[in-house]
Amino acid sequence: MTKKSNEFSLQDLQSNPHFHRLPPPLPPSHLPSPGPCTCANGSTLLKNVVPKNQAVELRKRREKEFQQHKARVLARNQLPSKTACTCSPGSTQLKDRLPPDSEELFKRRAKELQQHKARTESVLSTRLYAPSNSPLQYPIQGFKVRPMTPTFIPGLALHAEQRSNYTVSLEVSEGVLRTTIPAKGVQVIVTGNGESRLMVESSSLEALNELLADVSYTSTIYHIHTGDLATFQFEDHEAVFPITIKQPQPPVLYDMGTDINSQVTITTKTFLRYPELNALLKTIREFYKDIEIIIADDSMKPEKIPGPHIQQFIMPPAQGWFAGRNLAVSQVTTKYFLWVDDDFLFTKWTKIEELVKVMEANPELDVLGGKVGGDQFYFSLIYDEGDEVEGGCMYRKSRRRFHSLPGYPQCSVVNGVVNFFLARTDAVQRVGFDPQLKRLAHSEFFMDGLGSLMVATCGHVSVSHQARQKHKDTRLYKAFRYPPRSDARSKLQLHFFKNHLKCIKYG
Amino acid sequence: MTKKSNEFSLQDLQSNPHFHRLPPPLPPSHLPSPGPCTCANGSTLLKNVVPKNQAVELRKRREKEFQQHKARVLARNQLPSKTACTCSPGSTQLKDRLPPDSEELFKRRAKELQQHKARTESVLSTRLYAPSNSPLQYPIQGFKVRPMTPTFIPGLALHAEQRSNYTVSLEVSEGVLRTTIPAKGVQVIVTGNGESRLMVESSSLEALNELLADVSYTSTIYHIHTGDLATFQFEDHEAVFPITIKQPQPPVLYDMGTDINSQVTITTKTFLRYPELNALLKTIREFYKDIEIIIADDSMKPEKIPGPHIQQFIMPPAQGWFAGRNLAVSQVTTKYFLWVDDDFLFTKWTKIEELVKVMEANPELDVLGGKVGGDQFYFSLIYDEGDEVEGGCMYRKSRRRFHSLPGYPQCSVVNGVVNFFLARTDAVQRVGFDPQLKRLAHSEFFMDGLGSLMVATCGHVSVSHQARQKHKDTRLYKAFRYPPRSDARSKLQLHFFKNHLKCIKYG
Repeated sequence: MTKKSNEFSLQDLQSNPHFHRLPPPLPPSHLPSPGPCTCANGSTLLKNVVPKNQAVELRKRREKEFQQHKARVLARNQLPSKTACTCSPGSTQLKDRLPPDSEELFKRRAKELQQHKARTESVLSTRLYAPSNSPLQYPIQGFKVRPMTPTFIPGLALHAEQRSNYTVSLEVSEGVLRTTIPAKGVQVIVTGNGESRLMVESSSLEALNELLADVSYTSTIYHIHTGDLATFQFEDHEAVFPITIKQPQPPVLYDMGTDINSQVTITTKTFLRYPELNALLKTIREFYKDIEIIIADDSMKPEKIPGPHIQQFIMPPAQGWFAGRNLAVSQVTTKYFLWVDDDFLFTKWTKIEELVKVMEANPELDVLGGKVGGDQFYFSLIYDEGDEVEGGCMYRKSRRRFHSLPGYPQCSVVNGVVNFFLARTDAVQRVGFDPQLKRLAHSEFFMDGLGSLMVATCGHVSVSHQARQKHKDTRLYKAFRYPPRSDARSKLQLHFFKNHLKCIKYG
Repeated sequence: MTKKSNEFSLQDLQSNPHFHRLPPPLPPSHLPSPGPCTCANGSTLLKNVVPKNQAVELRKRREKEFQQHKARVLARNQLPSKTACTCSPGSTQLKDRLPPDSEELFKRRAKELQQHKARTESVLSTRLYAPSNSPLQYPIQGFKVRPMTPTFIPGLALHAEQRSNYTVSLEVSEGVLRTTIPAKGVQVIVTGNGESRLMVESSSLEALNELLADVSYTSTIYHIHTGDLATFQFEDHEAVFPITIKQPQPPVLYDMGTDINSQVTITTKTFLRYPELNALLKTIREFYKDIEIIIADDSMKPEKIPGPHIQQFIMPPAQGWFAGRNLAVSQVTTKYFLWVDDDFLFTKWTKIEELVKVMEANPELDVLGGKVGGDQFYFSLIYDEGDEVEGGCMYRKSRRRFHSLPGYPQCSVVNGVVNFFLARTDAVQRVGFDPQLKRLAHSEFFMDGLGSLMVATCGHVSVSHQARQKHKDTRLYKAFRYPPRSDARSKLQLHFFKNHLKCIKYG
């Protein structure tokens, strides 16, 4: 590079592209510092070309611009603000199905969403980066503390080049920091011990690092699951790392005992279909003499179902389909339950043990569907959160699966299955069947469970479907089973609010 | 330092403490590299004192030792293996209360714990560190991808000193990496595009960083919540950072409507206490004419409770206390429910709205207890996970609270409360009341919920307790209510297995 004259005017400098060129957009860890750079041989040291009488002023203005730039980069690099989603062609626009004067409804939904965010988000979602060429060393994952319990911070250290004096600071928001008071004769100054900002100063790097190895963090308030961010700083280097604050949870384990009866409970819901139900029970008992059967019954005039290992629960008449499902599942005491509809029939291919085998081999699975008749119905859900004003986009894609279950080529990973499935009791109880869904409903359970339930479908276990019967209650049953359009409309209104959706498509 | 002769024997070197001195125990990020150090002025460059004919051999053996050292440090720095917990004095040792021949029970419990770990742990718990003085820049938190969806990795860059050639690699386990194929004329070599290990080589740092800015990650299998670890490497620098793989979940929001009746449902369980129940209902209706009341009833001979806004569910006789609680809660359609026992009485101080107010102002709260009579009972739980063989230690400490609820000095944060509380329906449904608990049970719900439920207690809302009555069912009620010792024993056995406990103390 040709050597330039020392005389540059302020204007020259301000128009010099090299002087004002901001560093490439660095993802910040709040205040990123890549560290001093090494100038290539032959570079022009720009500070030397600044007129002495303007140096201070120019440096101040440049620093101000740079801080603003960093703030903009920081803002850009927060969790990306949610963007509106695109509805699949053929979707139902939910706001078109709301009752008139739905402005209040929108407001209430927005308020519930804010509460939901307060409950589910924390600083543990914030995007953080490790800046390069930093002399700081710190934990980036896995530093977990119990609430209000002093815990040593692992791995804090400074590896800087030799200096006469080293000063580091560590700052937190939701807790306090402590370290050992240095022994007499050890040249270390500690400021802010027991407060949220700790500063350690020493002429000896070794002594400083010994103190850093003894820093402990104690969160201030009791919270079962949240986080804090610690800002670790040395000269113009800064790093931010997360601290997970979590109340340890005891596990909830089920004793599988020694046979199928202590592992699986059969659950079903019945309404005005006693002939069908009794036919089903007869076939269950052919193959599973002692298995526990739970029946949720909201028939108009309940009839007692006799027999051992049968638990029948009488609900208010016509209480509803999902209310009954939620009731039945709430009573299960075994690790798994098998959902059946009251008009199924067990056959020799209804081998519950085969479903248990797959679940046991894949402990992360929650729901395992089978075949009803020849029909192995399943679907996946394409869901986009959308933005905070309009809501999300939900698209149920029938017959779409992700891939096979490793080791089980006859089984596939999906998001939803038929009404014949084996399920982990605790996982399904955590999602629940929404008792507001009275008549027509199926996919809604899997939508509520999207992201909570690992679902798969298998082709080698099946149940049979009874041919349609005609008996004294059939007409009344059909009146409820095939509800008026108003029922469909209220279901869409439920999707609008409960799942914060903009549109939905049942494909 | 005095200048040493160049002639050192191999033995001299091997005994030289400075040569073999391993670096101080660094917390590793799998293979930590603090980066080259700057030797102090006057240092002896040790490679120069190694006899030339032994240099290669010595270097190899030193490198092998160093790798073993790193492996040992790595092993030391995994998540600390769980250590046995210490039972509080006066605790019940649960293994002493097991049936004879409990070896199989221990085995089954150990198996269930392994499954539980497979379901709840992932690489997202691994302790990771950012090594100091690394030219690598990378994300350390907040990089979240949808399963099987290509996503750009933010913030990857190399800021190394000038060299003729730069080679970086990025390696993952649960997915593949892709980047743009460099345009003709751009001197960049990309190896492993679309595979789990990507290597980028260039003579231009700028070109390399442009390519790094375009690297995307796609997870291989569908999983609702897991992680991957990416190893980013340049020369002898290495960093490991986490990738969160998560299926986005639609929220489940409740419409609070416009009055208390659309916000709160009252729930209760009754057994052989119709006089008490009817007295309670009368007082509820004095203050809340239209509020929905859900009654789970397992009385021997059920009697219909008439009246609007009453939902009565008939259970098998004497089915059980927690089974009934779980049933009642499974039927709630409002955002909150108020739990009451069937022998309470509402008074003018039973202002449900006051409890709702506190819950609404503190959206992270799940359960808010009040006073029964003059008694504001609450407790905290001290829980230590313990080790994998023996299990955890649980200690219920009555009348122990953490601190006040910010803004509500009459309320305190605790782990458990009385049987009079307002609760978020979805949060309590996720924990559940274990239907295996038939008679005596209270704290068990809060133990199952420890770490899942944020619980508080307030002194300004109360309910009254009926004086003990004597009616035709009282004797039979007492026979069930005060069960034989065998009931207490089976409860302890349940704690042993379900919560994987070693000991428990009710203080």
